[in-house]
Amino acid sequence: MRIGVLGTATVGQTIAEKLASLDHDVMVGTRDPEETLARTTSEKAWVLPFGEWHRNHEDVQIGTFAEAASYGELVVNGTSGDASLKVLDAAGAENLDGKILIDIANPLDFSQGMPPSLTVANTDSLGEQIQRAFPGARVVKALNTVTARVMVEPGEVGGGDHTMFVCGNDAAAKEEVTRILKDWFGWRDVLDLGDITNARAMEMYLPLWVRLLSSLSIPMFNVKVVR
Amino acid sequence: MRIGVLGTATVGQTIAEKLASLDHDVMVGTRDPEETLARTTSEKAWVLPFGEWHRNHEDVQIGTFAEAASYGELVVNGTSGDASLKVLDAAGAENLDGKILIDIANPLDFSQGMPPSLTVANTDSLGEQIQRAFPGARVVKALNTVTARVMVEPGEVGGGDHTMFVCGNDAAAKEEVTRILKDWFGWRDVLDLGDITNARAMEMYLPLWVRLLSSLSIPMFNVKVVR
Repeated sequence: MRIGVLGTATVGQTIAEKLASLDHDVMVGTRDPEETLARTTSEKAWVLPFGEWHRNHEDVQIGTFAEAASYGELVVNGTSGDASLKVLDAAGAENLDGKILIDIANPLDFSQGMPPSLTVANTDSLGEQIQRAFPGARVVKALNTVTARVMVEPGEVGGGDHTMFVCGNDAAAKEEVTRILKDWFGWRDVLDLGDITNARAMEMYLPLWVRLLSSLSIPMFNVKVVR
Repeated sequence: MRIGVLGTATVGQTIAEKLASLDHDVMVGTRDPEETLARTTSEKAWVLPFGEWHRNHEDVQIGTFAEAASYGELVVNGTSGDASLKVLDAAGAENLDGKILIDIANPLDFSQGMPPSLTVANTDSLGEQIQRAFPGARVVKALNTVTARVMVEPGEVGGGDHTMFVCGNDAAAKEEVTRILKDWFGWRDVLDLGDITNARAMEMYLPLWVRLLSSLSIPMFNVKVVR
């Protein structure tokens, strides 16, 4: 499948690498491909500079946001929450219409220091904002509740015995994303929470995730819904 | 131990019953004990009218909020989130000073219909509001992330293989509450998230809990932090 991955930091890199390893045709989208490929330093110590990453992943193509979205039969929003709406604007509604858009972004607000709060919460969510702004896209919120590595290698935590949530307004899109999570990434327990308003619940879990990261001192964890 | 339990609905009843069954001396606090004892109907279909409940639990004493708080060496806030600060005012700061106050309440806002949002979230929490309003109380947020039955019988979900969170500013109080959760109620995995600001994370988990209740159609579930 041709897949456009928006975002070049850890989430984008991790998703693109996994999809390419499964022999999908992947194009990563960025604002300025030339600038991104030339990067040899990173603002964040834990993010590999894209240029360096790409030398080991030359099977992954790179294009503008619009090129990647247009290329993809499926599009993944792997950008940061504060950039998502701008990035999707640059990608272009016409390149998202009718396509499944997996929204991984979290509206984290680091402006007041650590731990982050959310820029939108409680009575709205980033997932809903994206669906409202791009009504033609089939938005499915997923994967935002775990660190990038766990998204694509759930088996590395507790043998994979934990839970992923999905939500969205399009039932067929959620079924397809659930299939992708299970068959491609190895998730065993995928729970459909309902329509896109459930993105509130999935994003409001993030403060707990951030505190757990701090308490456990490792990002390799997730919750299992025991029932 | 003498324990004051504030609140007469399902959480109050369930906590009081469990503590009394363990031979603790329990006094439930309410606004008007006579009125509460006379209750034979309940506004909420799923809450047993207190008068009816009390006929089978005559070992549990009943008093005003102030009497119950004064009686308890340990105090439990089992009231609804919208009532908590008023109830604790009625209980009296002088009756809470120096005591552990286990805060179970969630600031759920049902005024806009279902599912509820939170009346306070993101940059503050009910747990913090309570600690600020009663600086002499040793507030420990706990048990708010599960249904009442699971609070005291965690073994009834997945054999007890799931996680309870605690947070608060007083390390010794958290240790004591952790001991109570484990030795009295049977919790095996109790995770200390840190100071009382972590009540934000524990309360912001509630929207996910509510959506899970809806998806799973049962309240007997909890999350396990798999790591």
